[in-house]
Amino acid sequence: MNDGVPALQVVAPDGVPAITSSTNLPAVLTPILANLTWPDGSVGITQGDVVVLASKVVSKAEGRLIKAPDREAAIDAETVRLVASRENADGSRLRIVQNRQGIVMAAAGVDSSNTHPGTVLLLPEDPDASARALRRGLAARLGGVRPGVILSDSAGRPWRDGVADLAIGAAGIAVLDDARGRTDDAGRPLEVTVVAVADEIAAAADLLKGPTGGRPLAVVRGMGRVVTHEDGPGARVLNRTGAQDMFALGTREAWERGRAGDPLP
Amino acid sequence: MNDGVPALQVVAPDGVPAITSSTNLPAVLTPILANLTWPDGSVGITQGDVVVLASKVVSKAEGRLIKAPDREAAIDAETVRLVASRENADGSRLRIVQNRQGIVMAAAGVDSSNTHPGTVLLLPEDPDASARALRRGLAARLGGVRPGVILSDSAGRPWRDGVADLAIGAAGIAVLDDARGRTDDAGRPLEVTVVAVADEIAAAADLLKGPTGGRPLAVVRGMGRVVTHEDGPGARVLNRTGAQDMFALGTREAWERGRAGDPLP
Repeated sequence: MNDGVPALQVVAPDGVPAITSSTNLPAVLTPILANLTWPDGSVGITQGDVVVLASKVVSKAEGRLIKAPDREAAIDAETVRLVASRENADGSRLRIVQNRQGIVMAAAGVDSSNTHPGTVLLLPEDPDASARALRRGLAARLGGVRPGVILSDSAGRPWRDGVADLAIGAAGIAVLDDARGRTDDAGRPLEVTVVAVADEIAAAADLLKGPTGGRPLAVVRGMGRVVTHEDGPGARVLNRTGAQDMFALGTREAWERGRAGDPLP
Repeated sequence: MNDGVPALQVVAPDGVPAITSSTNLPAVLTPILANLTWPDGSVGITQGDVVVLASKVVSKAEGRLIKAPDREAAIDAETVRLVASRENADGSRLRIVQNRQGIVMAAAGVDSSNTHPGTVLLLPEDPDASARALRRGLAARLGGVRPGVILSDSAGRPWRDGVADLAIGAAGIAVLDDARGRTDDAGRPLEVTVVAVADEIAAAADLLKGPTGGRPLAVVRGMGRVVTHEDGPGARVLNRTGAQDMFALGTREAWERGRAGDPLP
């Protein structure tokens, strides 16, 4: 053991079954969480642990797997605002949009990569509400332990190749670790101040979850400092749109508006 | 112990001293790494571990703390291309640029938040080369263990509040975990395929490092599958600029070019 030295443990247990709209998610996850085995030899889940679940699992439990002969129409239906689009090499269209959940992501988060042809999986309608419900259901079954809950999804990033997982829903997590008011090593106020800790936890969990989604569940131990008693505002506050968003449109889209004499959005 | 269940351990040891341009970084870090204590009770560093070090520590060791009476001029000197800019509430200017290292980030990565007034800390000139040198120096002292090395820095993200750590330098890491060619649970080719695993490892490590930089070092155990014998191309391949970049200019900058009749960049 390393008492006093900050440490994280992350485990991705086996045993999450195939999820359908008739699955009671807290009931299915509780025995898995109660039997977690940790590198330090401890067993189970305890106060301060964070449960990170792939949002697609929650979507399936919430009946968000729908028939959609036309994937593009399904994306249309989830889109509030187009940010940027581009033709892919295979002739399909990549669309980056703000979706109904308020998140800017490719294809509005509509997933057809792991579903039967003719069906798509939509994001939970309100991922923070889903996280709160999962937390409530787990706490009721875990004898008073109220873990933090994060629902994760992978997203591309401007200027970076590859995807990384983000927190799209959260309950019981201080999603922004706010250092404003603290000072640096020299005693002066810190400049870069707010860490998106929920996104970093989602990223850490993704390291074990694997690209095929075979391990949709991971639990992070060691972040008790950001696990709150109250559910809090959720991951919604991580979305930056509106006046603070310097990338509300893609370069080409913004340029075309200027050329056409249209105003800035 | 949880044999067979994927698990990560991350530790952020005490004991990294103040670093100056006369510090021999591998020599300073080796005893700390050799005495790491892990949640599972093991001690030291072993093959497959990933050393994640805040890039500012490397910068200091490389003499990149420089006199700069004018921070803006220092940013100019590190800038290859302006992406977007905005006036902050306090009248200062936020500039997002592509820097000499090829990374798009605020203020070109020039750090004045933890330095004496009149000085700034520049990024390492070639963070991948710095990571390789650190790896070589560690391996020479660690009796044949060649850990993966990641140099991390925090960065803002479009559409997300808060900063998260990225891998800006890497050696001995398959920075993109490429699932292309693999199939999903139903046997069809995976669509979303390439995970920026080096960025996710940097994010995981940042969870322990703390906003004041008091713990600039973290070590991640459990990602041996992405630790390579060869140093590899480094984190440079994570930079996406050029034709694939849909956000080469901020919305206002692109709109103004269109309005002025200037061509798309």
